[in-house]
Amino acid sequence: MTATAPSPRTAVRRLPERGAYDRATIDAILDEALVAYVGWVADGQPYVTPVTHWREGDRLYWHASAGSRMIRATSHGEPVCVTAGFVDALVFARSGTNHAMNFRSVMVLGVPHLVADEGEKAASLDALIDHLAPGRAALLRPATAEELRKTAVAWIDLDEASAKVRTGGVNDEPGDEDWPVWAGVVPVSVVRGRPEPDQRSTGPVPAGLGASTARPRPRRSATPR
Amino acid sequence: MTATAPSPRTAVRRLPERGAYDRATIDAILDEALVAYVGWVADGQPYVTPVTHWREGDRLYWHASAGSRMIRATSHGEPVCVTAGFVDALVFARSGTNHAMNFRSVMVLGVPHLVADEGEKAASLDALIDHLAPGRAALLRPATAEELRKTAVAWIDLDEASAKVRTGGVNDEPGDEDWPVWAGVVPVSVVRGRPEPDQRSTGPVPAGLGASTARPRPRRSATPR
Repeated sequence: MTATAPSPRTAVRRLPERGAYDRATIDAILDEALVAYVGWVADGQPYVTPVTHWREGDRLYWHASAGSRMIRATSHGEPVCVTAGFVDALVFARSGTNHAMNFRSVMVLGVPHLVADEGEKAASLDALIDHLAPGRAALLRPATAEELRKTAVAWIDLDEASAKVRTGGVNDEPGDEDWPVWAGVVPVSVVRGRPEPDQRSTGPVPAGLGASTARPRPRRSATPR
Repeated sequence: MTATAPSPRTAVRRLPERGAYDRATIDAILDEALVAYVGWVADGQPYVTPVTHWREGDRLYWHASAGSRMIRATSHGEPVCVTAGFVDALVFARSGTNHAMNFRSVMVLGVPHLVADEGEKAASLDALIDHLAPGRAALLRPATAEELRKTAVAWIDLDEASAKVRTGGVNDEPGDEDWPVWAGVVPVSVVRGRPEPDQRSTGPVPAGLGASTARPRPRRSATPR
């Protein structure tokens, strides 16, 4: 794994001991987070748009509707910031100030590129599907030219990225340790539940999906409206 | 509950049927999300910073180190965008294009205000603690003047806000329904685990913490891993 040098823009300045710039840490956070938040600017106003993202090597990808305001505002060399993260625990200290979250996040700065080539776009969207469920892309009805045209795929290089990681327990001020209140950590996790096939689903649940390997029974609640 | 009229900037244009502008929907999403993402601009570069947020009535609050770049860059009337959201399910369709996430998010635009009054700042930070664990703020070692000075509390009005909500199951293209692949929904939820007291903790686990009662609404079949 290569290391990303902290740039003046991505260096973690507050609590710098929580900053990390190695690609192993950065990649693991990006690969685990289900969504990312793209910051972009139009008419001086910042916007933060949630996107589905995925990583291929040194590139962070996301997709959006080709006609979306975000894509139109970032198609001509405008910079973006993409941040993804998640909570691992809530930390309850003996003072309000020392309450914290164990949180892992990555911030990436750069100028996005749009994937123009239709074959490259299709392959990259397949990589997203396979990230969510390994091997699934090959089993799907292939994308049409129209679908690919309506979908924009953007990416930025991971060369200006930083991670921020808080782990561990309560860090109280000296003298606060005996304050008579419950203090500790409440773990938080993002959990996938049992897959719910829709009415006409066939075949086994794909490997990698869901919390249980048992074949679930169809539920009415999962049928299309 | 009042309704927020969609502004030209917050109107959900792609799939407008997923847009919601009523405060009940907006407030519920903000109150459930554990973190928010603040978009701000410095030297033309957007940044997206994760923050701990909370809501008091018509105001969305967050805090940060008083000396942080984000606070310095948004202290003089500069606009921000605050987005918070979470995944409720992964939706596996029969084509790549129709894969989706059931996702609930809120986007708020505005110019942030900094809380200057020390008493107001302390009361607002107490509201954050009580949001995470009702009644806890009164049990803590009170904040010192130094702690309050080092903490910036910012807020924006919720008058320019919109929600985007995707619910339900697979929406395949006509003709795709019999494509021979597993299709359905995998529920996703954020789960709080069992509270882990630190070594010198005293007193009972606060009400509202912990795995069984923490979630404000019933979740679907989520099984902790």
